[in-house]
Amino acid sequence: LAAGPEIDAGAVVADLRELDALTGGPAGARRVCWGEDWRLARDWLGEKLGEIGLTPERDEAGNVWAYLEGEREPALALGSHLDSVPSGGWLDGCLGVAAALGVLRAWAGTGRRPPRTLALLDCADEEGARFGRSLFGSSALAGSLDPGALASLTDGEGRAIGEVLAGNGVALERALDAGRRLERIGGYLELHIEQGPVLESEGLPCAAVAGCAGVEREILAFSGQAAHAGTTPMDRRRDAGLAAAETALAVERVAVDGGGVGTTGLVELDPGIVTAVPGAARLSIDLRHADPEALARVHGGIHATAHAAAERRRCSLAIEPLWRIAPIRFDPGLVALAVAATAAAGGRAEPLISGALHDAAELARALPVAMIFSSSSRGLSHAKEEDTPEPDLIAAIEAFGELASAAAATDL
Amino acid sequence: LAAGPEIDAGAVVADLRELDALTGGPAGARRVCWGEDWRLARDWLGEKLGEIGLTPERDEAGNVWAYLEGEREPALALGSHLDSVPSGGWLDGCLGVAAALGVLRAWAGTGRRPPRTLALLDCADEEGARFGRSLFGSSALAGSLDPGALASLTDGEGRAIGEVLAGNGVALERALDAGRRLERIGGYLELHIEQGPVLESEGLPCAAVAGCAGVEREILAFSGQAAHAGTTPMDRRRDAGLAAAETALAVERVAVDGGGVGTTGLVELDPGIVTAVPGAARLSIDLRHADPEALARVHGGIHATAHAAAERRRCSLAIEPLWRIAPIRFDPGLVALAVAATAAAGGRAEPLISGALHDAAELARALPVAMIFSSSSRGLSHAKEEDTPEPDLIAAIEAFGELASAAAATDL
Repeated sequence: LAAGPEIDAGAVVADLRELDALTGGPAGARRVCWGEDWRLARDWLGEKLGEIGLTPERDEAGNVWAYLEGEREPALALGSHLDSVPSGGWLDGCLGVAAALGVLRAWAGTGRRPPRTLALLDCADEEGARFGRSLFGSSALAGSLDPGALASLTDGEGRAIGEVLAGNGVALERALDAGRRLERIGGYLELHIEQGPVLESEGLPCAAVAGCAGVEREILAFSGQAAHAGTTPMDRRRDAGLAAAETALAVERVAVDGGGVGTTGLVELDPGIVTAVPGAARLSIDLRHADPEALARVHGGIHATAHAAAERRRCSLAIEPLWRIAPIRFDPGLVALAVAATAAAGGRAEPLISGALHDAAELARALPVAMIFSSSSRGLSHAKEEDTPEPDLIAAIEAFGELASAAAATDL
Repeated sequence: LAAGPEIDAGAVVADLRELDALTGGPAGARRVCWGEDWRLARDWLGEKLGEIGLTPERDEAGNVWAYLEGEREPALALGSHLDSVPSGGWLDGCLGVAAALGVLRAWAGTGRRPPRTLALLDCADEEGARFGRSLFGSSALAGSLDPGALASLTDGEGRAIGEVLAGNGVALERALDAGRRLERIGGYLELHIEQGPVLESEGLPCAAVAGCAGVEREILAFSGQAAHAGTTPMDRRRDAGLAAAETALAVERVAVDGGGVGTTGLVELDPGIVTAVPGAARLSIDLRHADPEALARVHGGIHATAHAAAERRRCSLAIEPLWRIAPIRFDPGLVALAVAATAAAGGRAEPLISGALHDAAELARALPVAMIFSSSSRGLSHAKEEDTPEPDLIAAIEAFGELASAAAATDL
C-alpha cells in the first residue's frame, strides 16, 4: 500500500461521540435530513473543517464538499452522509463522513500536499426519511434523479418537498446541476457499517464491498371474497389471506433457491377481523440479488407462484411496483485495494456484496467507487441500539485510511 | 303435523319491510342494541303486539316477552332478536321475531286458545356490536352470563356498559334474575337466515338446524427478531411473519382434514414495513366443529403445527385465548319436528349444523330448542346486501308456523 500519513482513528471515534452528544444520545440520532438537528450536524462539520483550514461548499443538490488541494487531479472523493433516520444509530452515515474528515486532517497535519486532491463529500438525504426518496444527493450527482417525479412528494405533515428544500437553500428543479461537481472527481470511497450480521458472525472487524445487490420491491394485491368464518364451508372460500400466506412462503423458498434474499415485511388483510375470511390481502415483496439474471429468475419464480396461488384460490392478483434498481458492481481496481487494506487490518479475505443501498451505489453510475464495511453488533441498524465494537471501528477506520492513501496514489 | 291456524307469511314479510323502512333502508339496518333505532324497533314491536291485544313485558336483562295464553303450560317460546350490527341486513334477527309475531297473530285471529301458552321473545343484544359481548340477553336467561366479568367493558366512545344499560332500564348486576322467566317455558323455537351459502348452493329454501358448532378462538403471537431485509442472510433470520404464514395454512389444512372450518382473519406484523423482516406476528384462529372431540383434535393439531413452525424459525409462541364455546346439540324431538316442517315446505331433508351462534344456542343450555334457517343470497350477512329470495322467505316462515303448531301440540 502507498505511503501516506496515518489516520488518527481514535480522533475519528471521538468526533463521532461528539456528534452523537450534539444530535443524538440515548434516544437515538435526530439528524433527519432538512431538519434542525441535521443542519446542526453540518455546522459541526463546518467547524471541524475550519480547524484544518478548509471551507465547506454546497452544491445545487444540498451536498457538502470540502477540497484539500493535492499534487494532481482528478480528485479522490471520500464521504457518506450525516443525515439519519428518526431515532437512528450513531454510526450509520456519519462514520463515513468522520473517516473522510480524518483522512483530510491527517494530510493537513503533515504540511504536505497529498498526491492528488482529496474531496470530502457529505451527501444530502441519503435516508429519504422525510419524503420517502432515499439517495437524493448522490443520485442528483449521478444524474439518475428525476426532480419532476419528486415534485409532488409531501412529508407526514403535508409540507411539499419543494418548499422544504427551498428552506434549506436547494431548488429542486436545479438539483441535477450538482452533477458538474463530478467533472473534477476521479473516484469515490465510502466507509459504512455493515447493517447486517455477517461480519459479527465471522468474528471479523471489517470487509471490502464489491457492489450492491439489485432490488425488486412490489406490492402483491390479492382479491377474493370476504365471508363469515362460521358459516362458509372451506371449499366455498376465496381466501385472499391464504393466497398471501402461500406467496410469503414462496418468497423465502425461491429466494433461498436462487441464492438471494427475499422478504415479506408487510401484510394487510381486509376486513382483517377474527370472524371473517379475508376478502383482500396485500403483501410486500423485497427481493435482492447481486446478479441481475439471478434476480430476474427469483422475481419471475415468485410471480409464477403468486399467480398460481391466486388461481387455485379463485382470487385475482394485481401487482403494484414500488421500486427497483439493478445490481451495481463497484470498480474492480478500487475493490482490490479495499480488500488489501481490510485484510491487512484483520478483516475479511473476500469482499461482501451490500444488501443495503449506499451513496456509493449511485456514484458508481458515474465514477469508479469502492466501500469498506465495519461490523455491526447484532446486525442492528436504523435503531438507537446500532453499534460496532470499538476495536472493530478502529480497525475499519484505519483500513479506510490505508485505502484512501493507496487510491490517491493510483491513476484514477 | 298438528293442526293450527296458518301463518300469514306475506304479512310477516310486510312487517319486515315496514321495520326496514323505519330503522334501516339502503344503507343497512341501524338497530344496534341499546341505541335509539333499536328502541324505535321495540316500540314498533309493542304496537304490533298491541294490535292483537298483547302487552310486552321487559325482564331484568332487557329481553322483551309477550304471552298469548294457551290451554296449558309450560309455554312454548318463539323468537330471536331485533338488534342488528351497524349497517346490517334487513333479516338477521328480526326475521325470527316477526315470524314469532306472525304465529301469535294467527292464533289471536282465531279467537281460540292455542294448545299451550305461546311466548314471543325478543332477546337483548344478540350481536354484541357495541360492547363486544354477544348473546347478552339469552345468556342471562340461561344463567351463563357473568355480569362481573362484563362490568369493565366500554363502547367505542368510552362509555361504560353499566351506564349505557342503566339508561335502557337494565341493571347489569341483576341481569341474571331474568332467568326466572324460563320457569314458565318448556321449549324455544327460532327462525333465522342461514348467513352462509349452503342452502343457496343446493337450491333449497330452508332447513332444520340440529345444533351449533363449537368454537375455539385465539390469538397466536410469534416473536422472532426484526432485521434489515437487505443485509440479513436468509439462514440468519428469525422471521415471525413466516411462522404465522405457515400456521395460517395449517389452520386450513387441519380444519379440512378434521371436517370443520378454520379461519385466519387477522394478521399483524411488527414493524410491518416493506424493508424489515417481521420480528413479531400475531394471527387469529377461529375453529368451528359440531363434534367436541373433533374440535379438540383440530385445535390440538393446529397448536402442534404452530409450535413446530415457531421452533423451526427460532421464534417463541404465546397463545392468547379470545373465546370458546362447546358444540351445542338442539333437542332431538324438536329438531325432528323441524325437519318434517321444512321438508314439507320443499326444504332440506337433513338438518344443518349452524356455524354461527344464535340465541337458541344459549337457551339450549336450559331448554329443549330447535331452529329453522332460510337461505341467504350469496351467503352474505352482517351487511346491507344481506337478502333471501322472497319465495324462500315465504317457505321458511310457513315451515316455522307449522313447526310452532306441531311443537305446541307435543309434551314439552
